[in-house]
Amino acid sequence: MKNKLPSIVLIGAGNVAHHLGHRFQEMGIPVLEVFSRKITKARKLAKAIGASATNQLSAISKTADLYILAVHDDAIEAVARQLPLSPTTGLVVHTSGAMPSKVLKPFFKNYGCFYPLQTFSIQKAVDFEVLPLCIFSPQQRNRQKLTKVAKAICPNVYTIDDAQKSVLHVAAVFVNNFTNHLCYIAKEITDQQGIDFDILKPLLNETASKLAKYAPKEMQTGPAIRGDQQTMNKHLQLLESHPEWAQLYKLLSQSIAKTK
Amino acid sequence: MKNKLPSIVLIGAGNVAHHLGHRFQEMGIPVLEVFSRKITKARKLAKAIGASATNQLSAISKTADLYILAVHDDAIEAVARQLPLSPTTGLVVHTSGAMPSKVLKPFFKNYGCFYPLQTFSIQKAVDFEVLPLCIFSPQQRNRQKLTKVAKAICPNVYTIDDAQKSVLHVAAVFVNNFTNHLCYIAKEITDQQGIDFDILKPLLNETASKLAKYAPKEMQTGPAIRGDQQTMNKHLQLLESHPEWAQLYKLLSQSIAKTK
Repeated sequence: MKNKLPSIVLIGAGNVAHHLGHRFQEMGIPVLEVFSRKITKARKLAKAIGASATNQLSAISKTADLYILAVHDDAIEAVARQLPLSPTTGLVVHTSGAMPSKVLKPFFKNYGCFYPLQTFSIQKAVDFEVLPLCIFSPQQRNRQKLTKVAKAICPNVYTIDDAQKSVLHVAAVFVNNFTNHLCYIAKEITDQQGIDFDILKPLLNETASKLAKYAPKEMQTGPAIRGDQQTMNKHLQLLESHPEWAQLYKLLSQSIAKTK
Repeated sequence: MKNKLPSIVLIGAGNVAHHLGHRFQEMGIPVLEVFSRKITKARKLAKAIGASATNQLSAISKTADLYILAVHDDAIEAVARQLPLSPTTGLVVHTSGAMPSKVLKPFFKNYGCFYPLQTFSIQKAVDFEVLPLCIFSPQQRNRQKLTKVAKAICPNVYTIDDAQKSVLHVAAVFVNNFTNHLCYIAKEITDQQGIDFDILKPLLNETASKLAKYAPKEMQTGPAIRGDQQTMNKHLQLLESHPEWAQLYKLLSQSIAKTK
Protein backbone atom coordinates (compact mmCIF):
# COMPACT_ATOMS: atom_id res chain seq x y z
CA MET A 1 0.00 0.00 0.00
CA LYS A 2 2.44 2.70 1.22
CA ASN A 3 1.39 6.02 -0.32
CA LYS A 4 -0.60 4.47 -3.09
CA LEU A 5 -4.35 4.65 -2.63
CA PRO A 6 -6.14 1.31 -2.55
CA SER A 7 -7.88 0.11 -5.70
CA ILE A 8 -11.63 0.04 -5.20
CA VAL A 9 -14.53 -2.09 -6.37
CA LEU A 10 -18.02 -0.70 -5.85
CA ILE A 11 -20.71 -3.29 -5.22
CA GLY A 12 -23.98 -1.52 -5.91
CA ALA A 13 -25.12 1.33 -8.14
CA GLY A 14 -27.81 2.96 -6.03
CA ASN A 15 -27.79 6.37 -4.28
CA VAL A 16 -24.83 5.74 -2.01
CA ALA A 17 -22.71 4.02 -4.68
CA HIS A 18 -23.58 6.82 -7.11
CA HIS A 19 -22.43 9.60 -4.80
CA LEU A 20 -19.37 7.73 -3.49
CA GLY A 21 -18.33 6.76 -7.01
CA HIS A 22 -18.60 10.31 -8.31
CA ARG A 23 -16.67 11.61 -5.31
CA PHE A 24 -13.86 9.09 -5.84
CA GLN A 25 -13.71 10.15 -9.47
CA GLU A 26 -13.72 13.83 -8.52
CA MET A 27 -10.83 13.29 -6.09
CA GLY A 28 -8.81 11.24 -8.56
CA ILE A 29 -9.23 7.93 -6.75
CA PRO A 30 -9.61 5.12 -9.26
CA VAL A 31 -12.60 2.81 -9.04
CA LEU A 32 -11.79 -0.42 -10.91
CA GLU A 33 -15.25 -1.85 -11.26
CA VAL A 34 -18.92 -1.33 -10.52
CA PHE A 35 -21.28 -4.22 -9.87
CA SER A 36 -25.05 -4.07 -10.05
CA ARG A 37 -27.59 -6.83 -10.69
CA LYS A 38 -28.94 -4.46 -13.33
CA ILE A 39 -26.24 -4.15 -15.96
CA THR A 40 -27.64 -0.87 -17.31
CA LYS A 41 -27.28 0.70 -13.86
CA ALA A 42 -23.78 -0.72 -13.44
CA ARG A 43 -22.77 0.56 -16.87
CA LYS A 44 -24.21 4.02 -16.32
CA LEU A 45 -22.28 4.60 -13.10
CA ALA A 46 -19.15 2.82 -14.37
CA LYS A 47 -19.06 4.95 -17.49
CA ALA A 48 -19.44 8.17 -15.51
CA ILE A 49 -16.51 7.33 -13.25
CA GLY A 50 -14.20 5.50 -15.67
CA ALA A 51 -14.67 2.00 -14.26
CA SER A 52 -15.67 -1.30 -15.83
CA ALA A 53 -19.13 -2.75 -15.22
CA THR A 54 -20.50 -6.17 -14.40
CA ASN A 55 -23.72 -7.78 -13.28
CA GLN A 56 -22.00 -11.07 -12.37
CA LEU A 57 -20.68 -11.24 -8.83
CA SER A 58 -18.59 -14.25 -9.83
CA ALA A 59 -16.82 -12.13 -12.43
CA ILE A 60 -15.66 -9.24 -10.30
CA SER A 61 -11.99 -8.40 -9.90
CA LYS A 62 -10.38 -10.57 -7.20
CA THR A 63 -7.34 -8.39 -6.66
CA ALA A 64 -8.75 -5.03 -5.53
CA ASP A 65 -7.67 -3.59 -2.18
CA LEU A 66 -11.10 -2.42 -1.08
CA TYR A 67 -14.59 -3.73 -1.80
CA ILE A 68 -17.36 -1.32 -0.84
CA LEU A 69 -20.76 -2.93 -0.48
CA ALA A 70 -23.25 -0.12 -1.04
CA VAL A 71 -26.36 -2.30 -1.20
CA HIS A 72 -29.61 -2.46 0.77
CA ASP A 73 -29.22 -3.53 4.39
CA ASP A 74 -31.01 -6.81 3.83
CA ALA A 75 -28.84 -7.69 0.83
CA ILE A 76 -25.46 -7.23 2.57
CA GLU A 77 -25.09 -10.76 3.89
CA ALA A 78 -26.37 -12.42 0.72
CA VAL A 79 -23.98 -10.42 -1.44
CA ALA A 80 -21.06 -11.03 0.95
CA ARG A 81 -21.76 -14.78 0.81
CA GLN A 82 -21.60 -14.73 -2.99
CA LEU A 83 -18.47 -12.60 -3.33
CA PRO A 84 -15.88 -14.85 -5.00
CA LEU A 85 -13.04 -13.68 -2.75
CA SER A 86 -10.77 -15.74 -0.56
CA PRO A 87 -11.47 -14.86 3.09
CA THR A 88 -8.07 -13.19 3.48
CA THR A 89 -7.77 -11.04 0.36
CA GLY A 90 -8.81 -7.41 0.21
CA LEU A 91 -10.81 -5.45 2.74
CA VAL A 92 -14.61 -5.67 2.47
CA VAL A 93 -16.75 -2.93 4.01
CA HIS A 94 -20.40 -1.97 3.84
CA THR A 95 -21.97 1.48 3.93
CA SER A 96 -24.94 0.77 6.15
CA GLY A 97 -25.77 2.80 9.24
CA ALA A 98 -28.21 0.23 10.56
CA MET A 99 -26.02 -2.90 10.27
CA PRO A 100 -22.93 -3.62 12.36
CA SER A 101 -19.67 -4.27 10.53
CA LYS A 102 -19.59 -7.73 12.07
CA VAL A 103 -22.28 -9.08 9.73
CA LEU A 104 -19.33 -9.43 7.34
CA LYS A 105 -17.21 -11.39 9.84
CA PRO A 106 -18.36 -14.89 8.81
CA PHE A 107 -17.12 -14.24 5.28
CA PHE A 108 -13.92 -12.24 5.50
CA LYS A 109 -10.94 -11.79 7.78
CA ASN A 110 -10.65 -8.14 6.73
CA TYR A 111 -13.96 -6.38 7.10
CA GLY A 112 -15.37 -3.09 8.29
CA CYS A 113 -17.70 -0.16 7.73
CA PHE A 114 -17.55 2.88 5.51
CA TYR A 115 -20.66 4.81 6.51
CA PRO A 116 -21.35 8.31 5.22
CA LEU A 117 -23.82 9.75 7.74
CA GLN A 118 -26.04 11.63 5.38
CA THR A 119 -29.40 11.38 3.70
CA PHE A 120 -28.84 10.53 0.06
CA SER A 121 -31.05 11.03 -2.92
CA ILE A 122 -30.04 10.79 -6.56
CA GLN A 123 -31.39 14.21 -7.47
CA LYS A 124 -29.44 16.21 -4.90
CA ALA A 125 -25.66 16.70 -4.76
CA VAL A 126 -23.94 15.48 -1.61
CA ASP A 127 -21.40 17.75 0.04
CA PHE A 128 -18.49 15.54 1.11
CA GLU A 129 -16.82 18.61 2.57
CA VAL A 130 -19.38 18.69 5.39
CA LEU A 131 -20.76 15.18 5.85
CA PRO A 132 -19.24 12.93 8.51
CA LEU A 133 -17.75 9.69 7.22
CA CYS A 134 -17.76 6.99 9.89
CA ILE A 135 -15.30 4.16 9.45
CA PHE A 136 -14.53 1.04 11.44
CA SER A 137 -12.66 -2.21 11.26
CA PRO A 138 -11.62 -4.36 14.20
CA GLN A 139 -8.05 -4.42 12.89
CA GLN A 140 -5.83 -1.38 13.39
CA ARG A 141 -4.19 -1.91 9.98
CA ASN A 142 -7.56 -1.90 8.23
CA ARG A 143 -8.74 1.13 10.17
CA GLN A 144 -5.66 2.97 8.90
CA LYS A 145 -6.41 1.90 5.34
CA LEU A 146 -10.03 3.06 5.62
CA THR A 147 -9.02 6.32 7.25
CA LYS A 148 -6.69 7.03 4.34
CA VAL A 149 -9.39 6.44 1.74
CA ALA A 150 -11.97 8.33 3.77
CA LYS A 151 -9.72 11.36 4.30
CA ALA A 152 -9.03 11.47 0.59
CA ILE A 153 -12.70 12.26 -0.08
CA CYS A 154 -13.91 13.87 3.14
CA PRO A 155 -12.38 16.07 5.85
CA ASN A 156 -14.68 14.80 8.64
CA VAL A 157 -13.73 11.20 9.34
CA TYR A 158 -14.76 9.49 12.57
CA THR A 159 -13.85 6.05 13.86
CA ILE A 160 -17.10 4.64 15.25
CA ASP A 161 -17.37 1.05 16.47
CA ASP A 162 -20.45 -1.11 15.96
CA ALA A 163 -22.02 -0.29 19.34
CA GLN A 164 -21.54 3.45 18.83
CA LYS A 165 -22.82 3.23 15.29
CA SER A 166 -26.07 1.62 16.29
CA VAL A 167 -26.65 4.43 18.80
CA LEU A 168 -25.72 7.03 16.20
CA HIS A 169 -28.16 5.43 13.80
CA VAL A 170 -31.09 5.71 16.22
CA ALA A 171 -30.12 9.31 16.84
CA ALA A 172 -30.00 9.92 13.08
CA VAL A 173 -33.52 8.52 12.76
CA PHE A 174 -34.70 11.15 15.24
CA VAL A 175 -32.76 13.97 13.58
CA ASN A 176 -33.65 13.12 9.99
CA ASN A 177 -36.53 10.64 9.49
CA PHE A 178 -38.69 11.85 12.36
CA THR A 179 -37.99 15.52 11.78
CA ASN A 180 -38.96 15.02 8.16
CA HIS A 181 -42.20 13.39 9.25
CA LEU A 182 -43.06 16.29 11.58
CA CYS A 183 -42.64 18.57 8.58
CA TYR A 184 -44.87 16.25 6.58
CA ILE A 185 -47.57 16.63 9.24
CA ALA A 186 -47.09 20.42 9.29
CA LYS A 187 -47.47 20.50 5.50
CA GLU A 188 -50.62 18.36 5.63
CA ILE A 189 -52.11 20.65 8.28
CA THR A 190 -51.38 23.83 6.32
CA ASP A 191 -52.34 22.33 2.93
CA GLN A 192 -55.72 21.31 4.30
CA GLN A 193 -56.37 24.93 5.24
CA GLY A 194 -55.08 26.40 2.00
CA ILE A 195 -52.05 27.92 3.71
CA ASP A 196 -48.79 27.92 1.76
CA PHE A 197 -46.31 25.58 3.55
CA ASP A 198 -43.51 27.83 2.28
CA ILE A 199 -44.42 30.26 5.07
CA LEU A 200 -42.90 27.74 7.48
CA LYS A 201 -39.63 27.16 5.67
CA PRO A 202 -37.70 30.07 7.17
CA LEU A 203 -38.71 28.77 10.61
CA LEU A 204 -37.36 25.34 9.76
CA ASN A 205 -34.08 26.79 8.50
CA GLU A 206 -33.74 28.92 11.60
CA THR A 207 -34.43 25.88 13.78
CA ALA A 208 -31.58 23.97 12.10
CA SER A 209 -29.31 26.99 12.12
CA LYS A 210 -29.82 27.56 15.87
CA LEU A 211 -29.14 23.91 16.59
CA ALA A 212 -25.85 24.23 14.73
CA LYS A 213 -24.74 26.70 17.40
CA TYR A 214 -26.69 26.04 20.56
CA ALA A 215 -27.75 22.98 22.56
CA PRO A 216 -31.36 21.89 21.84
CA LYS A 217 -32.21 22.15 25.54
CA GLU A 218 -31.42 25.89 25.51
CA MET A 219 -33.36 26.47 22.31
CA GLN A 220 -36.62 24.83 23.41
CA THR A 221 -39.55 27.23 23.13
CA GLY A 222 -43.32 26.85 22.70
CA PRO A 223 -46.39 26.01 24.76
CA ALA A 224 -45.08 22.68 26.13
CA ILE A 225 -41.96 24.11 27.77
CA ARG A 226 -43.94 27.13 29.05
CA GLY A 227 -46.60 24.81 30.46
CA ASP A 228 -49.20 26.78 28.50
CA GLN A 229 -52.07 24.28 28.80
CA GLN A 230 -54.61 26.64 27.21
CA THR A 231 -52.69 26.84 23.92
CA MET A 232 -51.99 23.09 23.97
CA ASN A 233 -55.70 22.37 24.41
CA LYS A 234 -56.51 24.67 21.51
CA HIS A 235 -53.96 22.88 19.33
CA LEU A 236 -55.32 19.47 20.31
CA GLN A 237 -58.79 20.64 19.28
CA LEU A 238 -57.43 21.65 15.87
CA LEU A 239 -55.89 18.19 15.51
CA GLU A 240 -59.11 16.40 16.49
CA SER A 241 -59.70 14.98 13.02
CA HIS A 242 -56.27 13.28 13.12
CA PRO A 243 -56.18 11.33 16.39
CA GLU A 244 -52.70 10.02 15.59
CA TRP A 245 -51.24 13.50 15.19
CA ALA A 246 -53.04 14.60 18.35
CA GLN A 247 -51.49 11.63 20.16
CA LEU A 248 -48.03 12.60 18.86
CA TYR A 249 -48.67 16.20 19.94
CA LYS A 250 -49.51 15.04 23.47
CA LEU A 251 -46.58 12.68 23.79
CA LEU A 252 -44.06 15.17 22.41
CA SER A 253 -45.43 17.91 24.68
CA GLN A 254 -45.21 15.65 27.73
CA SER A 255 -41.67 14.69 26.83
CA ILE A 256 -40.73 18.37 26.42
CA ALA A 257 -42.31 19.25 29.79
CA LYS A 258 -40.07 16.66 31.47
CA THR A 259 -36.92 18.46 30.29
CA LYS A 260 -37.71 21.53 32.40
CA MET B 1 -51.46 58.71 6.77
CA LYS B 2 -50.83 59.01 2.99
CA ASN B 3 -47.15 58.23 2.36
CA LYS B 4 -46.09 58.96 5.90
CA LEU B 5 -45.33 55.84 7.96
CA PRO B 6 -47.39 55.48 11.11
CA SER B 7 -45.87 56.47 14.42
CA ILE B 8 -45.33 53.45 16.61
CA VAL B 9 -45.46 52.64 20.32
CA LEU B 10 -43.90 49.34 21.42
CA ILE B 11 -45.57 47.73 24.42
CA GLY B 12 -43.03 45.25 25.77
CA ALA B 13 -39.24 44.99 25.78
CA GLY B 14 -38.71 41.22 25.49
CA ASN B 15 -37.30 39.20 22.56
CA VAL B 16 -39.92 40.15 20.00
CA ALA B 17 -40.02 43.85 20.97
CA HIS B 18 -36.21 43.90 20.95
CA HIS B 19 -35.89 42.53 17.42
CA LEU B 20 -38.84 44.50 16.01
CA GLY B 21 -37.58 47.71 17.63
CA HIS B 22 -34.09 47.30 16.20
CA ARG B 23 -35.48 46.50 12.78
CA PHE B 24 -37.70 49.61 12.80
CA GLN B 25 -34.67 51.66 13.77
CA GLU B 26 -32.54 50.02 11.07
CA MET B 27 -35.16 50.79 8.42
CA GLY B 28 -35.62 54.37 9.57
CA ILE B 29 -39.10 53.89 10.99
CA PRO B 30 -39.50 55.98 14.13
CA VAL B 31 -40.63 54.31 17.34
CA LEU B 32 -42.02 56.96 19.68
CA GLU B 33 -42.01 55.07 22.91
CA VAL B 34 -41.21 51.75 24.59
CA PHE B 35 -43.19 50.45 27.55
CA SER B 36 -42.04 47.73 29.94
CA ARG B 37 -43.05 47.06 33.55
CA LYS B 38 -39.31 47.02 34.19
CA ILE B 39 -38.10 50.54 33.53
CA THR B 40 -34.48 49.42 33.05
CA LYS B 41 -35.56 47.10 30.23
CA ALA B 42 -37.73 49.81 28.67
CA ARG B 43 -34.88 52.31 28.88
CA LYS B 44 -32.32 49.93 27.41
CA LEU B 45 -34.38 49.19 24.32
CA ALA B 46 -35.69 52.78 24.00
CA LYS B 47 -32.15 54.17 24.13
CA ALA B 48 -30.93 51.74 21.46
CA ILE B 49 -33.69 52.74 19.04
CA GLY B 50 -34.06 56.44 19.82
CA ALA B 51 -37.43 56.22 21.62
CA SER B 52 -38.63 57.41 25.01
CA ALA B 53 -39.22 54.89 27.81
CA THR B 54 -41.95 54.37 30.38
CA ASN B 55 -43.07 51.74 32.89
CA GLN B 56 -46.49 53.39 33.37
CA LEU B 57 -49.16 52.22 30.97
CA SER B 58 -51.26 55.23 31.95
CA ALA B 59 -48.47 57.55 30.80
CA ILE B 60 -47.98 56.27 27.26
CA SER B 61 -48.51 58.48 24.24
CA LYS B 62 -52.19 58.61 23.28
CA THR B 63 -51.67 59.88 19.76
CA ALA B 64 -49.56 57.20 18.05
CA ASP B 65 -50.88 55.51 14.89
CA LEU B 66 -49.87 51.99 15.82
CA TYR B 67 -49.54 50.25 19.18
CA ILE B 68 -47.68 46.94 19.02
CA LEU B 69 -48.27 44.67 22.01
CA ALA B 70 -45.25 42.41 22.13
CA VAL B 71 -46.01 40.83 25.51
CA HIS B 72 -46.56 37.28 26.75
CA ASP B 73 -49.72 35.64 25.44
CA ASP B 74 -51.37 35.58 28.85
CA ALA B 75 -50.66 39.29 29.42
CA ILE B 76 -52.22 40.56 26.18
CA GLU B 77 -55.76 41.03 27.49
CA ALA B 78 -54.67 42.50 30.81
CA VAL B 79 -52.42 45.03 29.07
CA ALA B 80 -55.10 45.86 26.47
CA ARG B 81 -57.58 46.51 29.28
CA GLN B 82 -55.20 48.95 30.93
CA LEU B 83 -54.18 50.85 27.81
CA PRO B 84 -55.42 54.43 28.32
CA LEU B 85 -56.66 54.79 24.75
CA SER B 86 -60.11 55.68 23.55
CA PRO B 87 -61.58 52.67 21.72
CA THR B 88 -61.44 54.43 18.37
CA THR B 89 -57.96 55.98 18.33
CA GLY B 90 -54.94 54.27 16.83
CA LEU B 91 -54.57 50.71 15.72
CA VAL B 92 -53.67 48.16 18.37
CA VAL B 93 -52.07 44.86 17.35
CA HIS B 94 -50.39 42.01 19.16
CA THR B 95 -47.50 39.83 18.00
CA SER B 96 -48.70 36.47 19.28
CA GLY B 97 -48.96 33.39 17.09
CA ALA B 98 -51.10 31.53 19.60
CA MET B 99 -53.75 34.18 20.25
CA PRO B 100 -56.34 35.37 17.73
CA SER B 101 -56.46 39.07 16.93
CA LYS B 102 -60.02 39.17 18.27
CA VAL B 103 -58.88 39.03 21.91
CA LEU B 104 -58.34 42.75 21.38
CA LYS B 105 -61.87 43.32 20.05
CA PRO B 106 -63.54 44.12 23.39
CA PHE B 107 -61.15 47.01 23.90
CA PHE B 108 -60.58 48.67 20.53
CA LYS B 109 -62.39 49.30 17.31
CA ASN B 110 -59.12 49.13 15.39
CA TYR B 111 -57.24 45.98 16.21
CA GLY B 112 -55.22 43.27 14.53
CA CYS B 113 -52.14 41.06 14.48
CA PHE B 114 -48.53 41.67 13.57
CA TYR B 115 -46.99 38.24 13.90
CA PRO B 116 -43.41 37.52 12.81
CA LEU B 117 -43.36 33.74 12.31
CA GLN B 118 -39.92 33.02 13.69
CA THR B 119 -38.25 31.66 16.79
CA PHE B 120 -36.72 34.58 18.66
CA SER B 121 -33.92 34.64 21.15
CA ILE B 122 -32.07 37.71 22.36
CA GLN B 123 -28.61 36.30 21.54
CA LYS B 124 -29.23 35.57 17.87
CA ALA B 125 -29.88 38.12 15.12
CA VAL B 126 -33.19 37.81 13.29
CA ASP B 127 -33.18 37.99 9.51
CA PHE B 128 -36.17 40.10 8.50
CA GLU B 129 -35.25 39.54 4.87
CA VAL B 130 -36.34 35.89 5.13
CA LEU B 131 -38.90 35.61 7.94
CA PRO B 132 -42.59 35.72 7.10
CA LEU B 133 -44.53 38.53 8.74
CA CYS B 134 -48.20 37.66 9.15
CA ILE B 135 -50.61 40.54 9.52
CA PHE B 136 -54.33 40.77 10.01
CA SER B 137 -57.10 43.17 10.87
CA PRO B 138 -60.80 42.75 10.15
CA GLN B 139 -60.86 46.20 8.53
CA GLN B 140 -59.48 46.65 5.02
CA ARG B 141 -58.13 50.09 5.93
CA ASN B 142 -56.20 48.69 8.88
CA ARG B 143 -54.89 45.77 6.86
CA GLN B 144 -53.48 48.29 4.40
CA LYS B 145 -51.85 50.24 7.20
CA LEU B 146 -50.29 47.07 8.65
CA THR B 147 -49.14 45.88 5.24
CA LYS B 148 -47.38 49.18 4.71
CA VAL B 149 -45.51 49.00 8.01
CA ALA B 150 -44.77 45.29 7.52
CA LYS B 151 -43.42 45.76 3.99
CA ALA B 152 -41.15 48.51 5.25
CA ILE B 153 -39.26 46.01 7.39
CA CYS B 154 -39.80 42.67 5.66
CA PRO B 155 -40.27 41.49 2.06
CA ASN B 156 -42.41 38.45 2.98
CA VAL B 157 -45.72 39.76 4.24
CA TYR B 158 -48.77 37.49 4.44
CA THR B 159 -52.34 38.35 5.35
CA ILE B 160 -53.47 35.53 7.63
CA ASP B 161 -56.81 35.60 9.42
CA ASP B 162 -57.35 34.26 12.94
CA ALA B 163 -58.47 30.79 11.85
CA GLN B 164 -55.53 30.39 9.49
CA LYS B 165 -53.13 31.69 12.10
CA SER B 166 -54.16 29.14 14.68
CA VAL B 167 -53.55 26.37 12.14
CA LEU B 168 -50.22 27.92 11.18
CA HIS B 169 -49.29 28.05 14.84
CA VAL B 170 -49.89 24.32 15.39
CA ALA B 171 -47.85 23.63 12.26
CA ALA B 172 -45.07 25.87 13.60
CA VAL B 173 -45.06 23.87 16.84
CA PHE B 174 -44.39 20.72 14.79
CA VAL B 175 -41.74 22.38 12.62
CA ASN B 176 -39.89 24.16 15.41
CA ASN B 177 -40.70 23.04 18.98
CA PHE B 178 -41.10 19.34 18.25
CA THR B 179 -38.18 19.17 15.82
CA ASN B 180 -36.04 20.82 18.45
CA HIS B 181 -37.15 18.24 20.99
CA LEU B 182 -36.28 15.34 18.65
CA CYS B 183 -32.79 16.84 18.41
CA TYR B 184 -32.71 17.08 22.19
CA ILE B 185 -33.44 13.35 22.40
CA ALA B 186 -30.80 12.61 19.74
CA LYS B 187 -28.26 14.62 21.73
CA GLU B 188 -29.13 12.84 24.97
CA ILE B 189 -28.77 9.46 23.26
CA THR B 190 -25.37 10.29 21.77
CA ASP B 191 -24.10 12.10 24.90
CA GLN B 192 -24.89 9.04 27.00
CA GLN B 193 -22.66 6.95 24.75
CA GLY B 194 -19.84 9.49 24.56
CA ILE B 195 -20.54 10.25 20.90
CA ASP B 196 -20.11 13.85 19.76
CA PHE B 197 -23.56 15.24 18.80
CA ASP B 198 -21.77 17.44 16.26
CA ILE B 199 -21.51 14.37 14.00
CA LEU B 200 -25.27 14.73 13.45
CA LYS B 201 -25.34 18.42 12.61
CA PRO B 202 -24.61 18.09 8.87
CA LEU B 203 -27.50 15.61 8.70
CA LEU B 204 -29.81 18.10 10.35
CA ASN B 205 -28.74 20.87 7.99
CA GLU B 206 -29.22 18.62 5.00
CA THR B 207 -32.67 17.65 6.28
CA ALA B 208 -33.70 21.30 6.45
CA SER B 209 -32.04 22.12 3.14
CA LYS B 210 -33.85 19.29 1.34
CA LEU B 211 -37.16 20.38 2.82
CA ALA B 212 -36.54 23.85 1.43
CA LYS B 213 -36.69 22.33 -2.08
CA TYR B 214 -38.70 19.13 -1.93
CA ALA B 215 -41.94 17.99 -0.33
CA PRO B 216 -41.42 16.10 2.96
CA LYS B 217 -43.37 13.13 1.57
CA GLU B 218 -40.78 12.68 -1.19
CA MET B 219 -37.88 13.05 1.20
CA GLN B 220 -38.98 10.43 3.73
CA THR B 221 -36.31 7.78 4.25
CA GLY B 222 -35.42 5.36 7.05
CA PRO B 223 -36.61 2.06 8.51
CA ALA B 224 -40.24 3.13 9.09
CA ILE B 225 -40.97 4.01 5.45
CA ARG B 226 -39.06 0.93 4.25
CA GLY B 227 -41.02 -1.24 6.67
CA ASP B 228 -37.70 -2.53 8.05
CA GLN B 229 -39.04 -4.11 11.24
CA GLN B 230 -35.70 -5.68 12.17
CA THR B 231 -33.96 -2.30 12.39
CA MET B 232 -36.90 -0.75 14.23
CA ASN B 233 -36.81 -3.57 16.80
CA LYS B 234 -33.10 -3.03 17.30
CA HIS B 235 -33.67 0.70 17.79
CA LEU B 236 -36.46 0.06 20.28
CA GLN B 237 -34.12 -2.20 22.25
CA LEU B 238 -31.56 0.59 22.38
CA LEU B 239 -34.25 2.94 23.70
CA GLU B 240 -35.40 0.46 26.37
CA SER B 241 -34.11 2.56 29.27
CA HIS B 242 -36.27 5.52 28.08
CA PRO B 243 -39.79 4.13 27.66
CA GLU B 244 -41.07 7.57 26.67
CA TRP B 245 -38.62 7.87 23.81
CA ALA B 246 -39.37 4.30 22.75
CA GLN B 247 -43.06 5.19 22.73
CA LEU B 248 -42.37 8.24 20.59
CA TYR B 249 -40.24 6.12 18.27
CA LYS B 250 -43.12 3.65 17.83
CA LEU B 251 -45.77 6.29 17.29
CA LEU B 252 -43.67 8.28 14.80
CA SER B 253 -42.76 5.11 12.91
CA GLN B 254 -46.41 4.04 12.73
CA SER B 255 -47.39 7.48 11.52
CA ILE B 256 -44.65 7.39 8.85
CA ALA B 257 -45.75 3.91 7.70
CA LYS B 258 -49.25 5.27 7.09
CA THR B 259 -47.95 7.80 4.56
CA LYS B 260 -46.84 5.04 2.16
